[in-house]
Amino acid sequence: MNPNIMNGAESLLRTFVASGIDICFANPGTSEMHFVSALDRAPGMRAVLGLFEGVVTGAADGYARMAGKPAVTLLHLGPGLANGLANLHNARKGEVPVINVVGDHATAHRAYDAPLTADVSAFARPVSHWLVSTRDASTAAADGARAVQAARAAPGQIATLILPADAAWSPAERPAPPLPVQGPVPVSHEALAQAAEALRAGSAALLLRHAAARGKGLLAAGRIAAATGARLFCDTFAPRLERGAGRVALERVPYRPEPALAMLDGVKTLILVGGQPPIAFFAYPDQPSQLTPQGCTPLVLSHPHEDGTAALEALADLIGARGPARLAARGGFDLPADGGLDPAAIAAIVGHHLPEGAVVIDESVTGSFAHHRFLDGAAPHDVINLTGGAIGDGLPMATGAAVACPDRKVICMQADGSAMYTLQALWTQARYGLDVVTVIYANRSYKVLVEELKAVGAATTSPTALDMFDITRPHLDWVKLAAGMGVEGVRVETTRALSEALKSAVTARGPRLIEAVY
Amino acid sequence: MNPNIMNGAESLLRTFVASGIDICFANPGTSEMHFVSALDRAPGMRAVLGLFEGVVTGAADGYARMAGKPAVTLLHLGPGLANGLANLHNARKGEVPVINVVGDHATAHRAYDAPLTADVSAFARPVSHWLVSTRDASTAAADGARAVQAARAAPGQIATLILPADAAWSPAERPAPPLPVQGPVPVSHEALAQAAEALRAGSAALLLRHAAARGKGLLAAGRIAAATGARLFCDTFAPRLERGAGRVALERVPYRPEPALAMLDGVKTLILVGGQPPIAFFAYPDQPSQLTPQGCTPLVLSHPHEDGTAALEALADLIGARGPARLAARGGFDLPADGGLDPAAIAAIVGHHLPEGAVVIDESVTGSFAHHRFLDGAAPHDVINLTGGAIGDGLPMATGAAVACPDRKVICMQADGSAMYTLQALWTQARYGLDVVTVIYANRSYKVLVEELKAVGAATTSPTALDMFDITRPHLDWVKLAAGMGVEGVRVETTRALSEALKSAVTARGPRLIEAVY
Repeated sequence: MNPNIMNGAESLLRTFVASGIDICFANPGTSEMHFVSALDRAPGMRAVLGLFEGVVTGAADGYARMAGKPAVTLLHLGPGLANGLANLHNARKGEVPVINVVGDHATAHRAYDAPLTADVSAFARPVSHWLVSTRDASTAAADGARAVQAARAAPGQIATLILPADAAWSPAERPAPPLPVQGPVPVSHEALAQAAEALRAGSAALLLRHAAARGKGLLAAGRIAAATGARLFCDTFAPRLERGAGRVALERVPYRPEPALAMLDGVKTLILVGGQPPIAFFAYPDQPSQLTPQGCTPLVLSHPHEDGTAALEALADLIGARGPARLAARGGFDLPADGGLDPAAIAAIVGHHLPEGAVVIDESVTGSFAHHRFLDGAAPHDVINLTGGAIGDGLPMATGAAVACPDRKVICMQADGSAMYTLQALWTQARYGLDVVTVIYANRSYKVLVEELKAVGAATTSPTALDMFDITRPHLDWVKLAAGMGVEGVRVETTRALSEALKSAVTARGPRLIEAVY
Repeated sequence: MNPNIMNGAESLLRTFVASGIDICFANPGTSEMHFVSALDRAPGMRAVLGLFEGVVTGAADGYARMAGKPAVTLLHLGPGLANGLANLHNARKGEVPVINVVGDHATAHRAYDAPLTADVSAFARPVSHWLVSTRDASTAAADGARAVQAARAAPGQIATLILPADAAWSPAERPAPPLPVQGPVPVSHEALAQAAEALRAGSAALLLRHAAARGKGLLAAGRIAAATGARLFCDTFAPRLERGAGRVALERVPYRPEPALAMLDGVKTLILVGGQPPIAFFAYPDQPSQLTPQGCTPLVLSHPHEDGTAALEALADLIGARGPARLAARGGFDLPADGGLDPAAIAAIVGHHLPEGAVVIDESVTGSFAHHRFLDGAAPHDVINLTGGAIGDGLPMATGAAVACPDRKVICMQADGSAMYTLQALWTQARYGLDVVTVIYANRSYKVLVEELKAVGAATTSPTALDMFDITRPHLDWVKLAAGMGVEGVRVETTRALSEALKSAVTARGPRLIEAVY
């Protein structure tokens, strides 16, 4: 190989950089060597190492939600991609842009069924909106430009490029220029008129998702609510929200049938802005999957690929909602007196200490229902939720969000059972000095499953079932686990101790972990 | 739900037990609740909890290699299966039997694209020889019997049964009786005659895999070698071997082109017993993928599904090889004087202390090339290798092997970078008091990748590439990581300290970890 001749890997990398993609979360192997070594010849792309592919893909998810553009993941053949699939599933459900580059065996080597040979396309297909296997080095750059275009199409897609080793190492001609990106498209006048009519008729509500749940869209929704009395909702699994004092507050629709139907009771028209009608997370015997109450009609204002922000502003104008939105006031997170911890206490303490502009990652699972109540009055911040139900996205998303937002504090509110799926993310946080405070909700059980056991009508006295949801034998020691990966940690069991630990952690810089036991 | 009426989950479970399947490695969620709670009503199946699905599937792999029959894995929808795919890939490449039960949403719920909805079949297909999605509760038992039959077909297959939640919770009629299992079939007389002719012609060698590399097959191969001078080989990634003093020693063919071709030089006929001709692990520019030297012809004695053991015994008789096989002598692992550690020193010390009947798991990657040289003269033991190149199977396989063989010491020789993929296995070892000693090869780098960088012709001076293969910033502290999951650990840096730690660990019972730094 002559290092002075551009190879396929370098042409691809230069194409990404030219298209504005500048972060690569990587867990490379032999088949990705040429891509990795091109990083030094083609400046403009920063490589961030993860020790497990679920960390890599989850970091790309968190990065894109905050950066508003995709990162590249660099994965090693079928098994490497397989390890990253669960968090790609989450990104897909959140319609978050990700560009995967999956190295594969050299084309001629595929025939021999080597140990690592697998059907990479088959692994990729269920999570990919766009999927191409590069033919040879001469097409790598063009495929890369198309991958970026696909990933960035509104609201965001998963683009997977399979790069055979010989397409990476063989000579290529040139990088490819960026392609135009399909941004959000305007909604139709009919959609606006129908929504305006529903608002005028009364008992309407708005369910916001994607960009419409932030910034100008959220403010316009607040004006509409002030003018018409319409309630404002978000779904449990919104990819990203703005929240806190001085912002328009949203009611979060629960994912279980009974409380969701109760919350939506009385709504006659549910106007959907960028999202779907509410559905149950799981099916339960004799309970509905669709959570739109009887007598309530869903009405689409904007589909996910449409411009919900502009639609809300136009809608507010159309109905004459020119008055101010009602904004959440600071407060509501009074510190509990010294005592034991529970999710409400944790949320209140986080709310009290939250720095302005923080990014909150919420994978606290059973802990998360307390958040909105306590964090609506905290300093203004962004919230990232688990979108696809595949636990183990929290620590990685926090890692990626910190890479995207080096000047903002990232707070990861993380259930213990779920944290175990991708705990390797802590090492990446330590390596790059990322400014993340992880609060482990150490309830020491798969608590959500104990509750689900009841909900699905299985015997709640089953000792084997309860044994499967108990993670106390042995206790996980999160302070030791964090220390093993170079992250400073502390265990707290009282509100006072948590408050002190959090205060210290948010004023310092760099990764910290707080194990909150309850 | 009336707990007195058998549901689909219970009928499936009783079918498994009736078919001789009695271990379930599980990471269940809501959709698997009814299967889990049936465990108390249908005795005979032991459930073993893993905190990550890669642990569950890797444990099933290790269990089956030692138990000679499959375990059930219990996985939670598409993402849960996705997390287990890499180690199912390893099991598939090793032709190891595994039965996956993947819970899915209730049938009617699938239409709603809930957060966890995914194409479970698409995730399963690349790793599954047999794949069925159960229609309803009345077919669950029959599907279960067919899954067992498929998994147990010689030499072993991956059978995946997707179980919708309603098929689990709805009433079923009865369990299904076991189905006949397709055992290994006899090889043809022609195959025997051709192999005998090649042996008589001289310069023949045998390459053994699967059951033929153990017990009577191995002994017969040893008699053939003694009578004809034929060399005996195994491939780098043999699923399971018998090794040690008093056994027939095999030469392990390396996976890189040059040394493999050198080792096989002079062989005119390579007689394949249960395996494929040697191939390179990766393709390298300007190097061959097929590692059969020029002038050497591969000849199949037995395919993987055929009875290689009987074939070797018949072949030995046919050529009149009635004399004794040459057996490895005890020794060859002289303890190095006190000094620093390297893979050879670690292998020698393990060889010295290895208890008879131990099960050795080898995922030491760059460390493993020293093993055969030093362990051929150790006490007789079994060896399990990484079969599919998907790192992160070692700790889980050790866990499963210990469940299969509670009376044998399991020694897991494990590279540090690979160990990070599925470190959660240590928790399962602690929870069930499994008798596993993990030796972490703490070279603190993806050392194999530094070597591969050279092999594929990429720039070895690339600082970014070298940074991607360096895991020293920060150091992983394996003693703390183990302690965080309830496993006692110790760090050693000299041959004397390793020897003392290993001696103590093999005489104690229960999980231990030794971090061997070099």
